Amino acid sequence: MKFETSSQNEESKPTALVDGNVSFPQGFQAYGVNAGLRKGLLDMALIWSELPATFSGTFTTNSAKAAPVLVTKSVADRGLCQAIVINSTNANAMTGNSGYQDAVAMQARMAQGLNLSPELVAVASTGVIGVPLPMNLIYGGIAALVDAWHSSEIPGDGVTASQAILTTDTVAKTQAAIATLSSGTVRIGMMAKGSGMIHPQMATMLVFITTDAKVSKSVLDNLVRRGVEQSFHRISVDGDPSTNDMVLCLANGSSGVEIRSADDERIFGQALVALMQYGARRIAKDGEGATHLLTVKVRGGVNEADAALKARTVVRSSLVKSAVYGSDPNWGRVIASVGSVGLEFAPGVVDLTMNGMQLLQSGQPVAFDERRAKELMGQEEVVFDVDLHSGDAEAEAWGCDLTERYVEINARYRT
Amino acid sequence: MKFETSSQNEESKPTALVDGNVSFPQGFQAYGVNAGLRKGLLDMALIWSELPATFSGTFTTNSAKAAPVLVTKSVADRGLCQAIVINSTNANAMTGNSGYQDAVAMQARMAQGLNLSPELVAVASTGVIGVPLPMNLIYGGIAALVDAWHSSEIPGDGVTASQAILTTDTVAKTQAAIATLSSGTVRIGMMAKGSGMIHPQMATMLVFITTDAKVSKSVLDNLVRRGVEQSFHRISVDGDPSTNDMVLCLANGSSGVEIRSADDERIFGQALVALMQYGARRIAKDGEGATHLLTVKVRGGVNEADAALKARTVVRSSLVKSAVYGSDPNWGRVIASVGSVGLEFAPGVVDLTMNGMQLLQSGQPVAFDERRAKELMGQEEVVFDVDLHSGDAEAEAWGCDLTERYVEINARYRT
Repeated sequence: MKFETSSQNEESKPTALVDGNVSFPQGFQAYGVNAGLRKGLLDMALIWSELPATFSGTFTTNSAKAAPVLVTKSVADRGLCQAIVINSTNANAMTGNSGYQDAVAMQARMAQGLNLSPELVAVASTGVIGVPLPMNLIYGGIAALVDAWHSSEIPGDGVTASQAILTTDTVAKTQAAIATLSSGTVRIGMMAKGSGMIHPQMATMLVFITTDAKVSKSVLDNLVRRGVEQSFHRISVDGDPSTNDMVLCLANGSSGVEIRSADDERIFGQALVALMQYGARRIAKDGEGATHLLTVKVRGGVNEADAALKARTVVRSSLVKSAVYGSDPNWGRVIASVGSVGLEFAPGVVDLTMNGMQLLQSGQPVAFDERRAKELMGQEEVVFDVDLHSGDAEAEAWGCDLTERYVEINARYRT
Repeated sequence: MKFETSSQNEESKPTALVDGNVSFPQGFQAYGVNAGLRKGLLDMALIWSELPATFSGTFTTNSAKAAPVLVTKSVADRGLCQAIVINSTNANAMTGNSGYQDAVAMQARMAQGLNLSPELVAVASTGVIGVPLPMNLIYGGIAALVDAWHSSEIPGDGVTASQAILTTDTVAKTQAAIATLSSGTVRIGMMAKGSGMIHPQMATMLVFITTDAKVSKSVLDNLVRRGVEQSFHRISVDGDPSTNDMVLCLANGSSGVEIRSADDERIFGQALVALMQYGARRIAKDGEGATHLLTVKVRGGVNEADAALKARTVVRSSLVKSAVYGSDPNWGRVIASVGSVGLEFAPGVVDLTMNGMQLLQSGQPVAFDERRAKELMGQEEVVFDVDLHSGDAEAEAWGCDLTERYVEINARYRT
């Protein structure tokens, strides 16, 4: 599967998306086990790097940061990491000081099992808020992860790890990429779960990215931050950043290929963004109760930040989301939503298409074939493309439709 | 019906809410007619003042402002108004230059019928976006309103007017207030419809307030702006400011009582806020598909703006709204939502109650009786009261629950 960013040179194609997960880059292994946190399903995972890796992360801006976020943020501040231990079903959020101690203990126990310094181990949790971590089960899970890691029979291929981090996700979300830099090829791998607070009581977007590129902390920080801005910050299922959101990236240098030049940085950045956007779209599409991926492109904007704000606002509009569910090409809701935030624009010059069908031209409704519109909106992905004609900036955002099933799941779910 | 603001002196009670509408203050009449915009239902209204009135308004911040908003905004800029003509079913929004001409023509025709200068007439529309106003029907409606105004048999009591401005609202929203100032008593009346963009394709919060107080333009502007900030800006049904939102206030001075002192201003302001908050709550409660009024109080905030932002964010959280629908005392969602915006707070010290039942104390979950919680959440109004313990500021916001019916209405509605 090929990915090309619009700015990419047609001849060189220095980046490509490929099948794979966090174990795809050299020197990484990942495992999943059942620790008894949920019956019969994998619920704890380990990502391990053969070398201490440069470590960058972006973390939830929520004031109510979960304990594992606090612990892992300080690992990222130091900038080196060799292992990440993850549990699903319990978020260890709003659990106070004892919750923080539990996260530190989880980090220490994992480090001990892998014979690492605790400072090199990150932790991540996702699941119910406000319930103490069952530490006996966590310790058992860590022991099982260590056994798997020691075993020559259990593959560290990341398949079980990708499953173990899920909560109510309907599919595992993994992908990999290759980037061809000046001095060689590097690999990048990803596994992800959930989105925002889509999951009932779940605290919930976790993204893990590995690469065998050799890269400095400051460059990696910058690339991850910029990539997240163009991908995971552009998705919304129900709008709230959760208490546990993290995007973590480990770069262990095992390929021996270093990101040195500005060109290398650009190419690696393109691959990273492609991978992250792929993940973002997958997460949006797997939103709770969703039947459509909703993509909103805002172009002709004054600047990218404003175009992004407008695109994000449309994908989180309950009215637009409901219209997509009902296959209703309701352009009035889209324009009203675009107009509700950010810089003023001139509604009289706006163009709007839906899956290529023109709905508005220069602010005027275009007569369209209702049946054809319904058909187009029946596709898996519904793309609203808005041209503001007020500048050159553009941005894209992703979400999903709002369905009775979403309400049902979130209203009926027992605390 | 008594209304007391918390800052009000128990002995004096200088303001009270009473039954009534825009015709309650002296020198105002209001009429509703059927202009054939919708079958068998009232669909056009007139508010008329015997004297040119001081005129203030707040208008949608949406870039895609509807034509009547632009026309009425310039009336408010001049500051004098004697009549407002309103139609429902068609918003005259996204209708380009010809739509603007239609709004101006509607203003001129109403002025002619009442023998007023057009500059003294405001217009308001609510309904479908992107469809030209059927001007023949509008002119017919205006003629019928003029006939009613001339007639000695048709009462200008505002009852039909309150009905004529509704779209998919389930009830007319009217209320009145009395304020006792230093030199006498003044009356205030209100009629309102809809909320934000709750209505499918409808562009939709219209609030009309009349008073017989004598007040300067600058004082009225200030009181209306402050009142709206504490009321209509604190409600959310689905989050989007529409293309047509307006809150308009006419002060005709017919009582002969002038707002002169700072004390008068404070007392009148209290009555106005009480009336506006009453209207805001009524609008929120009548949100599409809603089964509960959701009230969120944030106290102990660093400042009012931040407390208001946090409260507004909780009432628009789809997860919180779904939990309210499902009678689930899901405090994790409330705290995650509070934490997602504005100034940082310390989750470890937060208190939270739901209809008086303690759910969190100093950030720790409190064991509660599940059955009792379900019962409390079955009440018409569900109040989450969050104390951040980080300051003295507080704010309240209102919304409604998110139901399958909301999705059904908004997905199924035909454009």
